[in-house]
Amino acid sequence: MNIVLSRDSQVRIMENTVANAEKYFGQFCTLMAAYTRKTAKLRDKSDLLVKQLIDYANTENPELRSTIKNFAEELAKVQDYRQAEVERLEMKVVEPLKRYGVQLKGTRAEIKRFNSVRNNEIKQLEKLERLRQKSPSDRQTITQAESNVHKASIDASRTTQQLEETIDEFQKQKLKDIQKIFLDFVTIEMAFHAKALEVYSSAFQNLDNYDFERDMEDFRAKIHIASGNYDARPASATNPSSTLPWSIGSQSVRSSLQRQRDSEDDSEENELQDFSDPEHAQIRR
Amino acid sequence: MNIVLSRDSQVRIMENTVANAEKYFGQFCTLMAAYTRKTAKLRDKSDLLVKQLIDYANTENPELRSTIKNFAEELAKVQDYRQAEVERLEMKVVEPLKRYGVQLKGTRAEIKRFNSVRNNEIKQLEKLERLRQKSPSDRQTITQAESNVHKASIDASRTTQQLEETIDEFQKQKLKDIQKIFLDFVTIEMAFHAKALEVYSSAFQNLDNYDFERDMEDFRAKIHIASGNYDARPASATNPSSTLPWSIGSQSVRSSLQRQRDSEDDSEENELQDFSDPEHAQIRR
Repeated sequence: MNIVLSRDSQVRIMENTVANAEKYFGQFCTLMAAYTRKTAKLRDKSDLLVKQLIDYANTENPELRSTIKNFAEELAKVQDYRQAEVERLEMKVVEPLKRYGVQLKGTRAEIKRFNSVRNNEIKQLEKLERLRQKSPSDRQTITQAESNVHKASIDASRTTQQLEETIDEFQKQKLKDIQKIFLDFVTIEMAFHAKALEVYSSAFQNLDNYDFERDMEDFRAKIHIASGNYDARPASATNPSSTLPWSIGSQSVRSSLQRQRDSEDDSEENELQDFSDPEHAQIRR
Repeated sequence: MNIVLSRDSQVRIMENTVANAEKYFGQFCTLMAAYTRKTAKLRDKSDLLVKQLIDYANTENPELRSTIKNFAEELAKVQDYRQAEVERLEMKVVEPLKRYGVQLKGTRAEIKRFNSVRNNEIKQLEKLERLRQKSPSDRQTITQAESNVHKASIDASRTTQQLEETIDEFQKQKLKDIQKIFLDFVTIEMAFHAKALEVYSSAFQNLDNYDFERDMEDFRAKIHIASGNYDARPASATNPSSTLPWSIGSQSVRSSLQRQRDSEDDSEENELQDFSDPEHAQIRR
């Protein structure tokens, strides 16, 4: 019975290993999926910001208009990289974690199968024991029972070996997969942060170069023409939004606006609030 | 009457300028606040992930345990930087945009006041016109009315000048503020991305160095001791979570777990789902 007992504790270790993996990989999958969703929401908000920036730029004087449009384009580029981040997280982190669920079910089934083979061995042993107590002289039945025990033991041994191989393979794969999934997560995040840093550096330069004095000249000219002082710059240049077609060239802005249209049916927090509302910027911590 | 008319169009330009700023700055404020909130949500999800990683690490063999704990600590550090990002966005982007709402109301009140002064000038002019028609010989009343028109004109001129100065100052401040707010936004984002990149680079190194073979030796020893093979490494080393106190040293992990506790009353999506649920990772695009 000693081998049976040690097999019992081996099965328990295997069951615990699988149950533990099931518990934590399930949580990692849920949390990584939530992380990806929140990243997608951040992208959506930024897309809305891009759209508003372009709308606003079209109402402003040339200098600010070009500065704000450029800023909107850079912001749109960051969202394209964020979109790539979202897609990669889905493919290389969330999906592999999901597949784990399936794999774990397979391993659990193997352990269950082994348990039933092992239970059969115990059943045959008990049967033999009962026969030896009840009818010690019934040689033929006892021999038959001994043969059944022998067969059940061979089955159990073979299954034990198969299971050991399965669980060894499972554990090895699990350790490799954990490493790979988290390495992929870190790589995806690094790529995104590096690109965002690059784009924002260029956005900084552009914003920093903005010359508000030129826009002020335009504005003053407009005001003074209105009040009867005609020796300033032509007023037509100061509000071109009514004459210029609404147009921007960047692919990033286009994809950003495309996403924005796609997500217009998502009503959550998309409506614009009165910005005197003191609640709207509350960040719980 | 020509001066009155040109003043009228000047007021309209000023009113439009303020209304336009009110519209777009309101939207920027709402969207920047939403962006900040979404960033805070991303931080919350990551904090949950940090907590689960530490729990999981404590159930694993020494090599993986130390690798996962280190990964959790790096992830917690990123969340500390994200927390700084959230606080800075609040302080340097959302708050200044909110203050704009107040400032715009002040400017709108000035314009209204000017309008009423201007309307008084028109009223006095109309009164004088009527008197001249009705009683052209009533010199005393006409002189009085002329004096009223003169006073009202002086008031209107003075107010016009004040308003010109106010709107000039408003516009200058607006252009400077737009530049400053967006520059601050870009600077805050750059600082976060740079720090995140730095931390993830270190996390990558650590994950990449993980040696799963050592953990496999531990695991095989545990399985074989259970099945009666005692010449392997001591089993006690393979599951130390029951004997080691739950302890981690990093400040980042502590602040991450603190935030996690603080946000436990936020029920939105915090419950962990079964990871066989195919819906949970859907990213709308």
